Amino acid sequence: MKDSNCIFCMIANGEIPSRTILENERFRVILDNGPATRGHALVLPKEHFANLFDMPEDWLKDAAVTAQQAAGRIRDKLSIDGLNIVQNNGEAAGQTVHHFHIHVIPRYKDDGQKILWSPRHPSDSELDAVCGELNA
Amino acid sequence: MKDSNCIFCMIANGEIPSRTILENERFRVILDNGPATRGHALVLPKEHFANLFDMPEDWLKDAAVTAQQAAGRIRDKLSIDGLNIVQNNGEAAGQTVHHFHIHVIPRYKDDGQKILWSPRHPSDSELDAVCGELNA
Repeated sequence: MKDSNCIFCMIANGEIPSRTILENERFRVILDNGPATRGHALVLPKEHFANLFDMPEDWLKDAAVTAQQAAGRIRDKLSIDGLNIVQNNGEAAGQTVHHFHIHVIPRYKDDGQKILWSPRHPSDSELDAVCGELNA
Repeated sequence: MKDSNCIFCMIANGEIPSRTILENERFRVILDNGPATRGHALVLPKEHFANLFDMPEDWLKDAAVTAQQAAGRIRDKLSIDGLNIVQNNGEAAGQTVHHFHIHVIPRYKDDGQKILWSPRHPSDSELDAVCGELNA
């Protein structure tokens, strides 16, 4: 179902114009207006789901395939050196619009972006503890 | 097919021990030994695919559902504030092991990580140009 107050619902359904690079029954893929790099695209479902946890399994499967198709298009048409898929859930993870979306981000040597983290070095016992909690 | 020289093939197939938090016919989900945050997990296919572009559609669909299941487990068992899904392709995108994998990264307020980019501000004509290239 659409949320009539959600800007990504409106964009996905063509009620607000966008630069569309791919569209199918369930998704619209648009260029991000504030891109990390040239060709940065967003996969938007035409129905409203707030985040990954709310995505029905069949929609999620189609989202992954749509992201792969967009990535393939970007790889074939632009001279890219790599590509990141990023999907954020919750403000603590950088999600700013609460409508599920997948970032498809082409990467270029020396593009000046860093979409990585600083690895931590927990002890074996700390790793065992979290593994135990997750398997409890 | 497995690649007998690939460490992620060996881990996914249980030939090298790992801290497994979820396993199904096609995937093993393990804790990352150099995690961004507590509970950082990796979804590893048991067959060898180098990256997103090489993933068969049915494997990709199952990978997305497995990542969602792992995310749900992490959300239910740990006190997280958000969650990032990250999937890197090519060295320019930070891929270090050339076996497809999905990072499932729980986020905590003040965890000190930044898995974001600096948005650029291209002109409308620059955005139109890249849209044209992608639709050509």
